[in-house]
Amino acid sequence: MKIEASGASFSACSDRFVTTGYRRSMNPMEQLDELARIEGLIGIPVMYPLQFDNASIIRDRMVKMGKKVGTVAPDTYIDPLWKDGSLTCRNPKIRKKMIQLIKESMDLCHELDGSDVLLWMAHDGYDYPFEDDYNMRWGYLLEGLAEVASYRRDVKVAIEYKAKEPRTHQYISDIGKSLLICEELKLPNLGIVVDIGHSLFGGENPAEAVALAARYNRLFHVHMNDNYRSWDDDLLVGGVHFWETLEFFYVLNKIGYDGWVTIDIWPSRVDGFKALQESIRRVEMFAEMARKLPLEEIKRLQDENQTMDIMEILRKKCIRY
Amino acid sequence: MKIEASGASFSACSDRFVTTGYRRSMNPMEQLDELARIEGLIGIPVMYPLQFDNASIIRDRMVKMGKKVGTVAPDTYIDPLWKDGSLTCRNPKIRKKMIQLIKESMDLCHELDGSDVLLWMAHDGYDYPFEDDYNMRWGYLLEGLAEVASYRRDVKVAIEYKAKEPRTHQYISDIGKSLLICEELKLPNLGIVVDIGHSLFGGENPAEAVALAARYNRLFHVHMNDNYRSWDDDLLVGGVHFWETLEFFYVLNKIGYDGWVTIDIWPSRVDGFKALQESIRRVEMFAEMARKLPLEEIKRLQDENQTMDIMEILRKKCIRY
Amino acid sequence: MKIEASGASFSACSDRFVTTGYRRSMNPMEQLDELARIEGLIGIPVMYPLQFDNASIIRDRMVKMGKKVGTVAPDTYIDPLWKDGSLTCRNPKIRKKMIQLIKESMDLCHELDGSDVLLWMAHDGYDYPFEDDYNMRWGYLLEGLAEVASYRRDVKVAIEYKAKEPRTHQYISDIGKSLLICEELKLPNLGIVVDIGHSLFGGENPAEAVALAARYNRLFHVHMNDNYRSWDDDLLVGGVHFWETLEFFYVLNKIGYDGWVTIDIWPSRVDGFKALQESIRRVEMFAEMARKLPLEEIKRLQDENQTMDIMEILRKKCIRY
Amino acid sequence: MKIEASGASFSACSDRFVTTGYRRSMNPMEQLDELARIEGLIGIPVMYPLQFDNASIIRDRMVKMGKKVGTVAPDTYIDPLWKDGSLTCRNPKIRKKMIQLIKESMDLCHELDGSDVLLWMAHDGYDYPFEDDYNMRWGYLLEGLAEVASYRRDVKVAIEYKAKEPRTHQYISDIGKSLLICEELKLPNLGIVVDIGHSLFGGENPAEAVALAARYNRLFHVHMNDNYRSWDDDLLVGGVHFWETLEFFYVLNKIGYDGWVTIDIWPSRVDGFKALQESIRRVEMFAEMARKLPLEEIKRLQDENQTMDIMEILRKKCIRY
Repeated sequence: MKIEASGASFSACSDRFVTTGYRRSMNPMEQLDELARIEGLIGIPVMYPLQFDNASIIRDRMVKMGKKVGTVAPDTYIDPLWKDGSLTCRNPKIRKKMIQLIKESMDLCHELDGSDVLLWMAHDGYDYPFEDDYNMRWGYLLEGLAEVASYRRDVKVAIEYKAKEPRTHQYISDIGKSLLICEELKLPNLGIVVDIGHSLFGGENPAEAVALAARYNRLFHVHMNDNYRSWDDDLLVGGVHFWETLEFFYVLNKIGYDGWVTIDIWPSRVDGFKALQESIRRVEMFAEMARKLPLEEIKRLQDENQTMDIMEILRKKCIRY
Repeated sequence: MKIEASGASFSACSDRFVTTGYRRSMNPMEQLDELARIEGLIGIPVMYPLQFDNASIIRDRMVKMGKKVGTVAPDTYIDPLWKDGSLTCRNPKIRKKMIQLIKESMDLCHELDGSDVLLWMAHDGYDYPFEDDYNMRWGYLLEGLAEVASYRRDVKVAIEYKAKEPRTHQYISDIGKSLLICEELKLPNLGIVVDIGHSLFGGENPAEAVALAARYNRLFHVHMNDNYRSWDDDLLVGGVHFWETLEFFYVLNKIGYDGWVTIDIWPSRVDGFKALQESIRRVEMFAEMARKLPLEEIKRLQDENQTMDIMEILRKKCIRY
Repeated sequence: MKIEASGASFSACSDRFVTTGYRRSMNPMEQLDELARIEGLIGIPVMYPLQFDNASIIRDRMVKMGKKVGTVAPDTYIDPLWKDGSLTCRNPKIRKKMIQLIKESMDLCHELDGSDVLLWMAHDGYDYPFEDDYNMRWGYLLEGLAEVASYRRDVKVAIEYKAKEPRTHQYISDIGKSLLICEELKLPNLGIVVDIGHSLFGGENPAEAVALAARYNRLFHVHMNDNYRSWDDDLLVGGVHFWETLEFFYVLNKIGYDGWVTIDIWPSRVDGFKALQESIRRVEMFAEMARKLPLEEIKRLQDENQTMDIMEILRKKCIRY
Repeated sequence: MKIEASGASFSACSDRFVTTGYRRSMNPMEQLDELARIEGLIGIPVMYPLQFDNASIIRDRMVKMGKKVGTVAPDTYIDPLWKDGSLTCRNPKIRKKMIQLIKESMDLCHELDGSDVLLWMAHDGYDYPFEDDYNMRWGYLLEGLAEVASYRRDVKVAIEYKAKEPRTHQYISDIGKSLLICEELKLPNLGIVVDIGHSLFGGENPAEAVALAARYNRLFHVHMNDNYRSWDDDLLVGGVHFWETLEFFYVLNKIGYDGWVTIDIWPSRVDGFKALQESIRRVEMFAEMARKLPLEEIKRLQDENQTMDIMEILRKKCIRY
């Protein structure tokens, strides 16, 4: 399985209260050293603008580590330049800048043989009733996405939807809106990242979300973490939602998903190394379990609407007691 | 304004605990008598199958009352026949029955000169992880909706999305999925009912939902009530969410909405007559306020991203102190 | 383990939409027949007023079935008489009636050698801002609880807290308020039922709730079911929250809980017999798993704040892959 | 009215994504300059350890500004030292340090004639199932609170409850637990801060929370802001919850509350000055409205359970249309 992770587990994990962070932040090189020691890790995302002098440093380093580049992630969320929106900013210069940044990220993705470019439009939303002209900004969003996805068809761009944080409302909030955009724009290289945590706290069942995304050939990437269904806690994979995470892999298996599985956790107070390693172990566990489940029998029971019989199978096959 | 309400406010309002209901349920004729006394009410929906011997009884009665028929609502949710889904039922006979029921409702709607046929697919969903084959059932849903909306183009059919209740998950859960369906099927008489309460407890901002629905020419109907953002409490209009309800009417005004505004409340313990009358008074109030708000000034401040100045206007124009 | 269940799994499970229910409701005698066939079931609760002619019919029947009486549950929630509150009703006659009903339930509990009397004050709450005089009604609540718990000290009365449904707000909403009441009234026979589902959708961690209740010697009873953290879905035990349910039993084990474990599910659409039987199998499973977990090692790791090491143990000990 | 605000509105308002902040952070002196220009502001809280060389600098500055010291707020949440808990930390040295910090804050509060010492135990909680020994840590919490509140009875210490953030679970999560602690410890100078936003996103009705706190003579302080009931968004006062905020002031008025009303907002993207000034205008507005509402008539209608009549009064008295 193509498991990917960034060095976030080795960063300071600061928040709005503990602004200096919960531990010393390693620099990008140190983070790569740590990632090199993680077992089961195949790929590493690259941020753009680069945290290194040039792309060849990364490529060489990846080769030496025996890792591949997964996602290329343009900075759509860290720079306060985007605070009032990027692709949907009222200011056309900011919109242009973001379009340019994404295009350059697409070029870099091609150059590094990455899998796709991540579009998490973190600040493209609003906070208050009456703050915004929704139709106008939805128009900007579609224009911007059309322009970047048309720029070069040989690079995938993948929308990561999220309902809130850092805004109280983000425009691309759920799987429905994400698919609506993709189907409207009809560009085959525009697709979706389903972050299991975003799906969970957005009130969705993540397994349904990936099934729908796959139905429309838009499932480009998945992100793994967990939370308590009210916020993006970015906890250990499967730390809370055991069955939903298993079903997520069950559907990935069923649809033949062969893309990256990115660990996207935020281990503020726990050991970052252990949290990342255990998350990978659990991804391997869930994938293994999903493969061993009796697909045909479950499919038959689903068709017969025998949910309790499925529950019995799950108990007997999955739990050790 | 075209305000509509059913006789639900004069029904027993039973629930899973108080199965005999919170008061005596009036019969359909008595309910009409009560509705006749409500001020400001223009339209009344008709259930199908009919609660009366034939359609002419209703038509005559409506004429005598000076009311119009609004929605025709096929029973997609009361009959336990639909408990395992209707348009998405695994059993093709049930799917056919529901399609037939909707078609007959469309004929009735035409006959009674109603506004549209309500499609709330209450039981088309699932309750447990692993219960369902999502892709298969999404396929059934699209097939069924295509068939009914194609049956006769001169009658509108309007999807009412809802995230949950009576199931823990309904397939047509939010504005994004609703628009995805409408845009995929490309049938101009297939549109959307935005129930402000469903939107609120689904984590949406209802004003954004109607703006988006209108952008795609799919806003056919709106339902009014209120809740605490976690369940479909169906409370008095504006009883909780004052600003969001006002913004909802502000956007309706802006897009030139001229359809029905249906009061869809469930006054279990409070006086049904008063709850319905006060809801209508509040719809009139919100509509009046929305008309009086300085649209151009607010639009300019929105474009300048001056949210706090908008907040000041709202305080000064809307609140009496 | 003392596992208890009512016949709810064999009732019609009606709700506000499907008022005729999702299946034919068995009568109380038929329900007992079904319960007799359930494996692992030890106890059955008794409703008061009785669904049978007299108490001896129940006692004899229980003896014949080899079952014990667990809870005695006064009807605090079905009769519309209580719709505006019972112990907190503004009408003193209603308050008296409820007090009387509870006292008679306590006598019955003594007569049948039941474990405790269930106090779920379903309608003691409010629905709207400005509806209520909170302090006055909190006073009524304390008065009523003091009177019933003082009536006879040899019968336990157990408060079941719940945040909402059938009201949007119930007064006894969480573990904190429940313990506040118990500690204020200082009556040793007044305690708490922790319903794992109420705790989950109330935003609590149920394991913390039982640990706190036990700290104050107020944990009298537990109810088992599951939901999606926003409503009282009353799903199959462990159907959603695997880890939280396991930790719940882990803490029950740690504190030496030896009371009843009541299956409190509401299987509307699934087979009631299978849902109840599988719930019991899962309670047995969780209890067995909790017993096998290395308590000392986990305690040591908790004290060392090594959460990720605990997660590794849980994966290795609990999951089959 | 005694309105208080800190300089947070003039800070960078950074978060976990925009770590450099949404604007330049003013230094403490500049923040005081801004606060001096805010109309209607009476008091300013003081952080401890001091952001200034010594207490006399603050006192002199306050005198010059014509402002009073409100709360003294020990740093229980910024310093990463507390990341694994402070009063409940497993490490006794950390617990001692926090106790010492609070005691020194109490001395400072006395010296500056402040109103109370704020105890927001931000990191005293846990993130994962199985992470914690709840009973042990609840014990530490009670010990610590008893020690500080006993240190000097002439200074009030006020617990600010919150359900989550920065942890997924905080121990002192709601009004029930807060009152349980206060009643158990029986120290008259230990009380509660009700933050209206914490109450809202914790699933409470804030008006009920202050009514209960007042019943037990534990309402020491209130914090004002708003959110969408799922997270601590710290928005403009009354920006979302108009009726609940009004009822909050209605109850404050009814119980004769004469303590500080602290504006506790976090205006990341909006103009900080305007957000704070508009929040104060709204506090004044709500307080004025609450005073003008017909208390006796509302009380009578509450006692007669005529909720819809109350709703009519609210519409007519409060809304301009």
